[in-house]
Amino acid sequence: MSLRNIRVVLVSPIYGGNVGSVCRAMKNMGISDLAIAAPRGELDVDEARMMALHAADIFNKRKEFATLQEAVADCGLVAGTTARRGLYREHARTPRDVAPRLLTAARKARVALLFGPEDNGLSNDDLTVCTQIMRIPSTVKYPSLNLSHAVMVCCYELYVASGLYEIPVERSREATSAAREHMFGMWEDALMKIGFMEEGTADHMMLGLRRILSRGLLTEKDVRILIGIARQAQWAGGEARKLQDKGGHKS
Amino acid sequence: MSLRNIRVVLVSPIYGGNVGSVCRAMKNMGISDLAIAAPRGELDVDEARMMALHAADIFNKRKEFATLQEAVADCGLVAGTTARRGLYREHARTPRDVAPRLLTAARKARVALLFGPEDNGLSNDDLTVCTQIMRIPSTVKYPSLNLSHAVMVCCYELYVASGLYEIPVERSREATSAAREHMFGMWEDALMKIGFMEEGTADHMMLGLRRILSRGLLTEKDVRILIGIARQAQWAGGEARKLQDKGGHKS
Repeated sequence: MSLRNIRVVLVSPIYGGNVGSVCRAMKNMGISDLAIAAPRGELDVDEARMMALHAADIFNKRKEFATLQEAVADCGLVAGTTARRGLYREHARTPRDVAPRLLTAARKARVALLFGPEDNGLSNDDLTVCTQIMRIPSTVKYPSLNLSHAVMVCCYELYVASGLYEIPVERSREATSAAREHMFGMWEDALMKIGFMEEGTADHMMLGLRRILSRGLLTEKDVRILIGIARQAQWAGGEARKLQDKGGHKS
Repeated sequence: MSLRNIRVVLVSPIYGGNVGSVCRAMKNMGISDLAIAAPRGELDVDEARMMALHAADIFNKRKEFATLQEAVADCGLVAGTTARRGLYREHARTPRDVAPRLLTAARKARVALLFGPEDNGLSNDDLTVCTQIMRIPSTVKYPSLNLSHAVMVCCYELYVASGLYEIPVERSREATSAAREHMFGMWEDALMKIGFMEEGTADHMMLGLRRILSRGLLTEKDVRILIGIARQAQWAGGEARKLQDKGGHKS
């Protein structure tokens, strides 16, 4: 399991709330190894636990290292994030681009994702230990992401690339052509019975209805609902005609 | 510009800090239309502005609507987000999946992205107005994202899908084969001059060196640096031999 070998390294984070939010983002995305490098000491631990919510376990199990070098000493690939430009930062690629390579490496060795402090991000010195540099796509107008947002995007890209997420299966299967045609036949009859259309206009109207109902996937359950509506309309249309025949009313 | 037609709708958000973080995430991703539906009234405005940082303009220009229906009345597609399962939530797709369709629709009409309150998310009632339902990939263990993280992931997917982000161009172009061969030639000579290898082992060593230096893209600038190193090594190796010849030392 590659994600187990992913370590998120926060370099000298300032706000406890952000660190807590980072823990939550990590847990949402199946990543649990948190390291804090060169901690400032005055981190607000209560705020961190409050924002971590159900991911306080990640915060409690965090490792602290005096230096960045120690925090990544046992890691193979070291990927740093930056929003700034300039020297050392030219070769930045997007997290989506880098994710497959990080996951492949993480099958065999620990991989570090580095995030700098909230005010200035990773320094040039910090970047020297990186084997890859990542830049999260963002606007020129406001390129700098909140720390926990940056962690979220990177962890999200790794989680999606890991293929662990299974798209929820529709409970009901797509209806077969035969089931759909049966349903449309009942609708055609029902729409005539309630006086919505007559022989002459039926074909045209039914094409419109088919177009409306065929735009998305139509499940077996959807078809059962639509058949139920048609059946009741057939009944109501029949009753209405009986009454009409009796009383001689015209609609 | 499709992103201009994207409206983020927060339904009854609880925490001002989250709303501020939402503004920042939106501005990072080039989206600026924020609506608050069914506001609770007691939102902490100072906290919101503090977390919005340079995106306070989005917070200040937010629109408030008494009901969700009013907040999306002028929108075409309405995409709701949910982390819960069950009735109404079966057809959820991922934001990455849905993004192209939302952007296409946003070329012609306003498109709404809906996010529920922090405690319970969108209700079944809220989901009835949605034309699409999105679920952000997350672990079964902890599927519920922080509100601003959920907004970030959805806006990020739209921004990436919009193609507006340009990958920063490397300042230096990839070196040509001729430039690389010239450089390797100088290294071969230099490594012999400094006594690292001899005629017999040169070919083998050079293959190793070529492998090391060819793993990534090698730019013209990289090649100039490597040529500079080789030139100095050639010089140092030559000087060392002169001294050796004079003094009769052996390395």
